[in-house]
Amino acid sequence: MEAIFTEEYFMKKAIEQAKAAFDKNEVPVGAVIVYKNSVIAAAHNLTETLNDVTAHAEMSAFTSASNRLGAKYLNECTLYVTLEPCVMCAGASYWTQIGKIVYGATDEKRGFSKFSRQILHPKTIVNAGVCKDECSELISDFFKKHRSV
Amino acid sequence: MEAIFTEEYFMKKAIEQAKAAFDKNEVPVGAVIVYKNSVIAAAHNLTETLNDVTAHAEMSAFTSASNRLGAKYLNECTLYVTLEPCVMCAGASYWTQIGKIVYGATDEKRGFSKFSRQILHPKTIVNAGVCKDECSELISDFFKKHRSV
Repeated sequence: MEAIFTEEYFMKKAIEQAKAAFDKNEVPVGAVIVYKNSVIAAAHNLTETLNDVTAHAEMSAFTSASNRLGAKYLNECTLYVTLEPCVMCAGASYWTQIGKIVYGATDEKRGFSKFSRQILHPKTIVNAGVCKDECSELISDFFKKHRSV
Repeated sequence: MEAIFTEEYFMKKAIEQAKAAFDKNEVPVGAVIVYKNSVIAAAHNLTETLNDVTAHAEMSAFTSASNRLGAKYLNECTLYVTLEPCVMCAGASYWTQIGKIVYGATDEKRGFSKFSRQILHPKTIVNAGVCKDECSELISDFFKKHRSV
């Protein structure tokens, strides 16, 4: 892998997505899916815009990546997401058999790791805490802004 | 509630959906969402047709019900589903705050109850085993058929 394609490099792409969510007054969570060093899907949280509580960044990214690859399984892909996946998104990742999940901030309430590692596919590798501070700050800034309105 | 609107009555509607999935060579799981004794959403598994492993009956039904009601939360609704929701779908039900989940067959592998009851919203009531035999038989018939091909 060339030095440019670090985990931080791709997490920055996910952070760009999270910022796009922030600008739409959505809880700022962003995700990208990478296959052979290419971003094949990019999405952000759209629960308010779509009036659909299931419209998390990861769910949209999974569907989009499968469409792009024409494949049901994403075992050769990596998901980069700014916040630890919730139980729903982690449960979805099981079905996709995603190769790796890299996330930034920890979700103390609904993060999958609060429940069980078995929620993920046994072959899915996890790396937590990449660009953690930047990912966390985006979310705390969002809630500060909305509490002060 | 009139006597006609029993849990079995609505589960039969979910079974009709599961049969529609069977006819499309999809694992036969069906779901309906009921609000004030009316079916406001009906869906079945379409993972093969859509080439999308997240296209479970419940996920489609949640999105459809929210669209129909123009509401993010389904706290006054009941989900009827022929198979115990998986972790992904149970995790989605948390976000919808669905009032009640009635399911038929148990899923010994990926059913949410194998992991944690906390995956569901604390206010969600659960009733398991409604029309259990019919729901299970549909699934075992499906696998028998496909194994013998």
